[in-house]
Amino acid sequence: MKDLPDIPALMARIGACARAAATELAVVPPEQKAEALIAAADTLIARQDAIIAANAKDMKFARDKGLSDAMMDRLRLDPARIAGIAEGLRAVAAQPDPVGEVLAEWDQPSGLHIRRVRTPLGVIGVIYESRPNVTADAGALCLKAGNAVILRGGSESFHSSQAIHACLQAGLQAAGLPEEAIQLVPTRDRAAVHEMLTMTGVIDVIVPRGGKGLVGLVQREARVPVFAHLEGIVHIYVDAAADPEKAMRVVLNAKTRRPGICGAAECLLIHRKIADTLGADLIRALIDAGVEMRVDEALSGIEGTVRASDEDWGCEYLDMVMAARVVGDLGLAIGHIEQHGSQHTDCIITEDDAAAQSFFDQLDSAILMRNASTQFADGGEFGMGAEIGIATGKLHARGPVGAAQLTSFKYLVDGDGAIRD
Amino acid sequence: MKDLPDIPALMARIGACARAAATELAVVPPEQKAEALIAAADTLIARQDAIIAANAKDMKFARDKGLSDAMMDRLRLDPARIAGIAEGLRAVAAQPDPVGEVLAEWDQPSGLHIRRVRTPLGVIGVIYESRPNVTADAGALCLKAGNAVILRGGSESFHSSQAIHACLQAGLQAAGLPEEAIQLVPTRDRAAVHEMLTMTGVIDVIVPRGGKGLVGLVQREARVPVFAHLEGIVHIYVDAAADPEKAMRVVLNAKTRRPGICGAAECLLIHRKIADTLGADLIRALIDAGVEMRVDEALSGIEGTVRASDEDWGCEYLDMVMAARVVGDLGLAIGHIEQHGSQHTDCIITEDDAAAQSFFDQLDSAILMRNASTQFADGGEFGMGAEIGIATGKLHARGPVGAAQLTSFKYLVDGDGAIRD
Repeated sequence: MKDLPDIPALMARIGACARAAATELAVVPPEQKAEALIAAADTLIARQDAIIAANAKDMKFARDKGLSDAMMDRLRLDPARIAGIAEGLRAVAAQPDPVGEVLAEWDQPSGLHIRRVRTPLGVIGVIYESRPNVTADAGALCLKAGNAVILRGGSESFHSSQAIHACLQAGLQAAGLPEEAIQLVPTRDRAAVHEMLTMTGVIDVIVPRGGKGLVGLVQREARVPVFAHLEGIVHIYVDAAADPEKAMRVVLNAKTRRPGICGAAECLLIHRKIADTLGADLIRALIDAGVEMRVDEALSGIEGTVRASDEDWGCEYLDMVMAARVVGDLGLAIGHIEQHGSQHTDCIITEDDAAAQSFFDQLDSAILMRNASTQFADGGEFGMGAEIGIATGKLHARGPVGAAQLTSFKYLVDGDGAIRD
Repeated sequence: MKDLPDIPALMARIGACARAAATELAVVPPEQKAEALIAAADTLIARQDAIIAANAKDMKFARDKGLSDAMMDRLRLDPARIAGIAEGLRAVAAQPDPVGEVLAEWDQPSGLHIRRVRTPLGVIGVIYESRPNVTADAGALCLKAGNAVILRGGSESFHSSQAIHACLQAGLQAAGLPEEAIQLVPTRDRAAVHEMLTMTGVIDVIVPRGGKGLVGLVQREARVPVFAHLEGIVHIYVDAAADPEKAMRVVLNAKTRRPGICGAAECLLIHRKIADTLGADLIRALIDAGVEMRVDEALSGIEGTVRASDEDWGCEYLDMVMAARVVGDLGLAIGHIEQHGSQHTDCIITEDDAAAQSFFDQLDSAILMRNASTQFADGGEFGMGAEIGIATGKLHARGPVGAAQLTSFKYLVDGDGAIRD
């Protein structure tokens, strides 16, 4: 699938263009960036037939490759989905511009006035898989934060991403911004990914969005800093002091609303005191809702359950399958989550404030919840607007990564001839 | 200089101990950490004779190695310097504890109450050179932020650092905290540094403190994330609209107060309109103050100047030497700084608000100053308390890195049975 001969030279050119664009973008007024995003949204709607035609090529390629129905569904574009993508661009345009925001300001006894202001990060690399909408979402968020972005989409969504990318470029052009602000790597050659991962001094940070394979590759090979996006191995612990009605509502929603998103619950931990009562009710309700329940020995007497194997602990199903086990107490629940979780999102169901406090204090997941569905693990639901993903690392960005997390800051210091003693 | 046979095994053991300590430290109350630091300060004073004796061994080693006077001075400990180190520990103890601080909290229409709270980062690796006080400063700041730290000091300060480290451990012990919270690599073998740089999953971030050689090594070899601490190639641009009196005061202080610190000015850029007047006065005053002035052709008529070579642009002298050149306008000054600076600290001297605004907008240094001495580039002078250094990277930490910059955060979400539609 080598489309272009010299990948290092191609990527070096793309990188140089991105750095030049980043310098320009850093001082662009908010309105101009918003104008580009709105023009891109308009273009997306105007060109929807062409986008759907490009997507049809990808769908054929995917069918020939024998992709799963779930993958095919992620790839598919139709007028409603294109309208959704355009809506997303308009929403990002309408958000407050993070660049230049004064994060803090104060005076020092020396007479200095110090401001800490948000700045763009610079050049962001986004490496993703089959969802073509990421082209628009990631491009828009990076632009909003004043960054240049190099997008590298999956080979399955190659034509769809190119068609969407052309709309973003039309938007940039309409607003008088450099087209190199949002570049899409124009080749399916995987050598381009390896190149991106080692472009230190050119790319400031890489955001990988995809499955275990991609994230693992990035973590092994990247010399450029990475915002880790591990899988969401989401646990719900139902405490002895859980309210049964809340537990039922939250657990069912967390597992079944959309089992394929990273905030979907994957493992249910049940306090032994309520295992035979609320615990059994929960498992029966999940089975009734169509969930395959893979349980430990203590729960295996419940009709319709399947015995879990060792691989079920710490497994991200992204499907109507859930692991469940009984734990002796809160400490053992925390221990299980530390051992098998992915520090993405974990939840406790309890009316006991002390238990909730321990859960919040002792666990170190990006998002910890009490009595709320883990499906809320989402930038929009957090009130941050669009997101590029949920970061599970602890450096710089954590949790939902929106435009504000794609920034850095600098200190601006005003004196009146102040000198240091 | 191989002191111990199996460095990978040694470092793996240190790493495992650090991770275990980090888990404990994350939930330790503020008072207990402060108690450990105060006890360490007391021990430092009580043991000052032993510390000075250990330092004498290092001084002998350094003398035999033929270290420069400046290096010898950095290494030297005496009662006053030990008292200063102890004072630093007490100051960190007295600072507010960053862990658990609620950085933001808000309600969502879904009924969720969301808090963003500070957490420790985990395990920090600090690699430094000859100054033994870094052992105490870095150890204290990491502990304050709830992190375990692995310290790797320079071989020149081996015995001094061990003596100081023993005081920190005594402090931890007195407060009932794990001694593994602050570990010092007990070997001069450089293989330990290489090991630290690749301990992904064990060390969360590496902070290098030292010269170009060390920072370059770390940047080349680190697989663990690094808080970049580049040299301070600090520029001062004296604009056409500079106030002469402020310019004189600030430039002299920025260069001569302590020429060896990273915030010391290294290059003077002078607007051509004032080159023959204020510019010449500044250069004469700097020469009178004992500074060797390496100047471009336009300034070479001034008595006592030396002609600059190409290597003088972008040079960090850390000494009573300064480069100077005339620039045609503000844009050219900015261009020079972008090309030759290190994004550490840069300064404009001007009474022209528009010029200052352009300087602040277009440059992307960690610290930008107007009419103030660059010697203020320091965590203490910024009101942040002690610092582990000035970060010149853009990810996570930037500018003075104090305890607060050595933290991450997590989201705590409270619901009352909230589910997502």
